[in-house]
Amino acid sequence: MDKSDFGRPPASFPAEEYTRRIERFRRKLAKEGLDGAVVTRGVSRLYLTGFESSAGTLLVDAAEGAVFVTDFRYIIMAERALPFAKCLLKKGGNDPAQAFLKKWRACGYEELEAKATLDALFAKMPESCSRKPVDAAIGELRAVKSRREIAALRRAVAQGDALYAWALPQIHPGMTEWEARAVFRRGADLFGQGESFDTIVCAGANGAECHHNPDLTVIRPGDPLLVDFGVLLDRYHSDMTRCVHFGKPSALYRKVYGIVLEANRKAIEAIRPGMTGEEVDAVARGHIAKNGYGAAFGHSLGHSVGMEIHEGPNFSPNEKRVIKPGMVITVEPGIYLKGRLGVRIEDVVLVTKSGCEVLTTAPREL
Amino acid sequence: MDKSDFGRPPASFPAEEYTRRIERFRRKLAKEGLDGAVVTRGVSRLYLTGFESSAGTLLVDAAEGAVFVTDFRYIIMAERALPFAKCLLKKGGNDPAQAFLKKWRACGYEELEAKATLDALFAKMPESCSRKPVDAAIGELRAVKSRREIAALRRAVAQGDALYAWALPQIHPGMTEWEARAVFRRGADLFGQGESFDTIVCAGANGAECHHNPDLTVIRPGDPLLVDFGVLLDRYHSDMTRCVHFGKPSALYRKVYGIVLEANRKAIEAIRPGMTGEEVDAVARGHIAKNGYGAAFGHSLGHSVGMEIHEGPNFSPNEKRVIKPGMVITVEPGIYLKGRLGVRIEDVVLVTKSGCEVLTTAPREL
Repeated sequence: MDKSDFGRPPASFPAEEYTRRIERFRRKLAKEGLDGAVVTRGVSRLYLTGFESSAGTLLVDAAEGAVFVTDFRYIIMAERALPFAKCLLKKGGNDPAQAFLKKWRACGYEELEAKATLDALFAKMPESCSRKPVDAAIGELRAVKSRREIAALRRAVAQGDALYAWALPQIHPGMTEWEARAVFRRGADLFGQGESFDTIVCAGANGAECHHNPDLTVIRPGDPLLVDFGVLLDRYHSDMTRCVHFGKPSALYRKVYGIVLEANRKAIEAIRPGMTGEEVDAVARGHIAKNGYGAAFGHSLGHSVGMEIHEGPNFSPNEKRVIKPGMVITVEPGIYLKGRLGVRIEDVVLVTKSGCEVLTTAPREL
Repeated sequence: MDKSDFGRPPASFPAEEYTRRIERFRRKLAKEGLDGAVVTRGVSRLYLTGFESSAGTLLVDAAEGAVFVTDFRYIIMAERALPFAKCLLKKGGNDPAQAFLKKWRACGYEELEAKATLDALFAKMPESCSRKPVDAAIGELRAVKSRREIAALRRAVAQGDALYAWALPQIHPGMTEWEARAVFRRGADLFGQGESFDTIVCAGANGAECHHNPDLTVIRPGDPLLVDFGVLLDRYHSDMTRCVHFGKPSALYRKVYGIVLEANRKAIEAIRPGMTGEEVDAVARGHIAKNGYGAAFGHSLGHSVGMEIHEGPNFSPNEKRVIKPGMVITVEPGIYLKGRLGVRIEDVVLVTKSGCEVLTTAPREL
């Protein structure tokens, strides 16, 4: 391996970013009448502290700040990584979290946590303690990206564009989908810290299987190729889908491609803060339906991206949440005809005060 | 990239393997007096069907067999991958799972599923329907590996050994931990389908942070290096920890290494089916404590491996579950001295009728 093949480790933000996130969360807790919250999900802990670990409990007291409880395997690292929170060691039966759970009279928890974990947690609380999910509160914080997060997402999307430009010339008929995927996977290590998710590569009619797992299907001359991939950089995800063609596209393919591209364009043009996710979704869905392919677009128009590849709010039917400046969301209409073809065109947009900015710059011409 | 750099896609077992797993699960359900179970966790669905997807519900009727409900994005693939189960499309408000949830009078569910998901599920069941967690039942099935699973785990562990032999000569003083990690990560793509987990690389005193995230720490001449890594092959995980030394180990390091190695040996020698996990753990823990380092071994002795990197039963204090032939478990004692050193030696063993077989073959001499 060359020196340049190693990439670099993920960078964290300065401590003040996490201090601010915890403060904002504390204000939310106070507003909801909660004394504190017990945050157990890995991604929530990572969001609030910048510290990645497979185990730990973050106790956020609305009045007093945050305490992180973890085990022997993580305590030394946690003490170094969390200057803004007290770190306590959980050892055998001695769990320092219990003192908080006994103290609070109104406690927040994550309802996306495993039922078994929550049942064990609730058993340690006094019966008189009222409980309330805080997933929506954390979700609201995460949905509107901070200045640093927007910069990180811009970098991740730019690296996705760069990876695409690097990978595409290496893909050619005669390769298998799996080989093409290996090129993107390798590139994601070079341009970031790995794939945002397992890269989807669909040759020919496999495109109709939206989330096709790349297999030994050989890309043939004249085949279309759908690639859906992203770069994980400093714990933020990019996401992009492009369709290319190794030959002359059929009339049907060109027609479908044009409809999908126009659906993507129309949605991006329509986006305004204050719209609901379903209103944006309806713009693209309406265009596709008007052209007779409504039943062939069976998934949502888009999802937010950030520390997770799929976050909320979404652009989807029944999404009542309102979009706001600072949200980063995908726009990815598609048309899928079983046994024949699949087309999806996906960009990442940043919602602004007056509309949106398209972060993805990779070419979309067929 | 060379042709050989692409690896190959994960292989599934023949359909009869999954047919058998579902049958065994159905018998367990019947034995527990359940009409059926709703299986929602990704790894459980993967175990029972061999089909990997981010969304879907497997409904296992004790009397009638399995039905898989999924959405537009997965339905075509699911129909191809699950010849042994009926596949139904969930579309908007029309969820075919509801018919089952209404029919069953005693229903199993997974308590490791998110509370919010289960609450929504329970709301669809009649109040009269009794509910019971089936996590332990699925866990028991998964804990004792089938003939095919044992073969797959042997292959994964052998590829871990091969990766180690390939990577080690590429690691040298002057490299950063991150660069060393990149070598293992790259190798895991060549020898399998990626890392079992993010490879842990600890130079010098960083070894004391059991799960240290590889960073820009430079490996210096004379440093010990701890590497904990695994290869994911055909959806089964290998796991191995080795400590090597770029120079002459200190007297303290040699002493600690000897104690850890002997703890590993003693535990492996002691393993017999019928012992509990805590009994095996106590053998290694007792040896380390006897030598004065009891407080420096703060984690469990081992965990089962399979479709997940951490499965049960474990070798750990308070593990009452009994080990059985066909279980595949790690043995990984360690001693960690903050600011000074960390040593862990980890092998994977297969429990046999009379003891255990060590699958890992990489050298352990200091």
